[in-house]
Amino acid sequence: MKSNKIRIGITQGDINGVGYEVILKTFADPMMLELCTPIIYGSPKVATYHRKALDIPANFSIINSAADASENKLSIVNCTNDEVKVEFAKADADAGKAALDALEKAISEYKDGLIDAIVTAPINKHTIQCEDFAFPGHTEYIEERLGDNFKSLMILLKDDFRVALVTGHIPVKDIASSITKELIEEKLMILNQSLKVDFGLSAPRIAVLALNPHSGDDGLLGTEEKEIIAPAIAEMSKKGILCYGPFAADGFMGSGNFEHFDAVLAMYHDQGLTPFKVLAMENGVNFTAGLPVIRTSPAHGTAYDIAGKGVASEVSFREAVYEAIDIFRNRERQEVASAHPLRKQYYEKRDDSDKLKLDSVEDDL
Amino acid sequence: MKSNKIRIGITQGDINGVGYEVILKTFADPMMLELCTPIIYGSPKVATYHRKALDIPANFSIINSAADASENKLSIVNCTNDEVKVEFAKADADAGKAALDALEKAISEYKDGLIDAIVTAPINKHTIQCEDFAFPGHTEYIEERLGDNFKSLMILLKDDFRVALVTGHIPVKDIASSITKELIEEKLMILNQSLKVDFGLSAPRIAVLALNPHSGDDGLLGTEEKEIIAPAIAEMSKKGILCYGPFAADGFMGSGNFEHFDAVLAMYHDQGLTPFKVLAMENGVNFTAGLPVIRTSPAHGTAYDIAGKGVASEVSFREAVYEAIDIFRNRERQEVASAHPLRKQYYEKRDDSDKLKLDSVEDDL
Repeated sequence: MKSNKIRIGITQGDINGVGYEVILKTFADPMMLELCTPIIYGSPKVATYHRKALDIPANFSIINSAADASENKLSIVNCTNDEVKVEFAKADADAGKAALDALEKAISEYKDGLIDAIVTAPINKHTIQCEDFAFPGHTEYIEERLGDNFKSLMILLKDDFRVALVTGHIPVKDIASSITKELIEEKLMILNQSLKVDFGLSAPRIAVLALNPHSGDDGLLGTEEKEIIAPAIAEMSKKGILCYGPFAADGFMGSGNFEHFDAVLAMYHDQGLTPFKVLAMENGVNFTAGLPVIRTSPAHGTAYDIAGKGVASEVSFREAVYEAIDIFRNRERQEVASAHPLRKQYYEKRDDSDKLKLDSVEDDL
Repeated sequence: MKSNKIRIGITQGDINGVGYEVILKTFADPMMLELCTPIIYGSPKVATYHRKALDIPANFSIINSAADASENKLSIVNCTNDEVKVEFAKADADAGKAALDALEKAISEYKDGLIDAIVTAPINKHTIQCEDFAFPGHTEYIEERLGDNFKSLMILLKDDFRVALVTGHIPVKDIASSITKELIEEKLMILNQSLKVDFGLSAPRIAVLALNPHSGDDGLLGTEEKEIIAPAIAEMSKKGILCYGPFAADGFMGSGNFEHFDAVLAMYHDQGLTPFKVLAMENGVNFTAGLPVIRTSPAHGTAYDIAGKGVASEVSFREAVYEAIDIFRNRERQEVASAHPLRKQYYEKRDDSDKLKLDSVEDDL
């Protein structure tokens, strides 16, 4: 019998942060191994160091490739120079190299069809920078390496609360000039599609935030709402996307109105992430939507301030694993549901008899 | 015996919004009349209309001026043309005029020393605009009319959680160019002084938020943190203000770190107000710091969507009255405490005897 357990590739991230701590804490629970087959791309030596230092009761097998991964076990593929040393909370170039090596191996095995989805532990964005990695973060790197020319969209989520961003890691001075009608429309299309396919929502409702305070206050505090955002919403509504707004960010988030929508599209990083983290800090998940590959990560970073202390919460990482599994299954279901559609039936519209024309068929059936 | 009840002047705000509803609900509780002597600047006719429409058991006396206000009663000074009509949720020029007339009368009676503090009900920023009122809101108008050339600072507060803004009602495209070292220093000084005098904190701690995502990520996502904000913090620290940062807004607010500070200085409107409203929507208070006059208001607006339905919560308005009273008392205490300081005693520093030089006095004692 073919196994249908989902193979989750996990990249170790920065070995001096809380990455291994949250990974090992998550898979110390044997129930997690019922849900998926986890394969860590990293270093058995480093994993052992963290396990001992933090006294986490997680066991793992060392393998050469995800092809050798056994079910009901946590496996590690060694991707790292054995000389690398853990120094908690240290921003270190060797650790950056180790993070990139793991990411590269996971991407390569994903391309070979050996894993179904990728969950990334946090990296240090500075130490990982090198000739091969000149990106602001995972999202952009994965879009480049596994995007197949699709555009990605960063979605932060906790249960049914989802926040996506029109612009991401850019300075505040560049926000207004980056917001265009085309960009908002592109993000709305990706978001709408992701809500349908990845989250199984048949008619998702999207709230679009305003750029300016008080949604521009009828032009007194900025014109982007009238000239860019509202026209983009109108255009996409015409195309059948259920999108609404623009809503003033403070009142919209403060009043809890986001509960009436399946996702919120924010115009810039802090506008979306600040209320998201206030509402969902502990168990937020970051999902890179829009790409063929499924990639999630915990919403937190390397957390050097608590690295090696054993106090990091694994909830966010575990949720990232759950979401990767859910999204994989939702996509499978969507594929099955749309693979053998019922044959379309054509009515003759011109007369009043509403006669079913069984003799009409689609050409390309 | 001279009464020491604080006389709170209350402006009616927009008569088609929830203003009268929250005012009357607040003073329907007789306990509130023990705390202060409330004087509404507005219209007895309009107040009666709201009281009947919403069935709120609040009684009031009609007076000509706060000079005639009795204790233990809610009083109304008529400032409004009797022809004005209430039409719930309607943005109406006559209602705008009525709001401005009430504000004018309150300012005039404050100048005459007839009231101690002003609590403003929400206005409609569009209908109030006219030759005499060309301001984005109450804050700027009161700074102009009662500021005595002091600069104001908007503080949103709920209990010990206080958020102040470096820039306010401006478009996002103008934020980065408006942030200067001088402006941040000015706001830090006003905020520090207000925390001491208005809130009675002897050594207030202030957190300063970053402008850019990830606090600029060491320059990758913007340079204002390094070039403007950090130097402003360093400069003010040298002058004895306990200010820290810059902190990335999302992580700082999401992790609850604001609890370790007496106030948070945000760089722009949505950065401060969005997390504030998420955390304190129901009972947030807006305080105009930095001016001789004490002016507070509820953090909500006219709320046309629920006007006339009787469902508006008066908590925020009641908190605004409490805060006005607290701030008035704190200022009084501060004045008493600093009015008759102990005579300074001088030590001769040059020798080792630490001898108290009782013969030295300040020249201007």
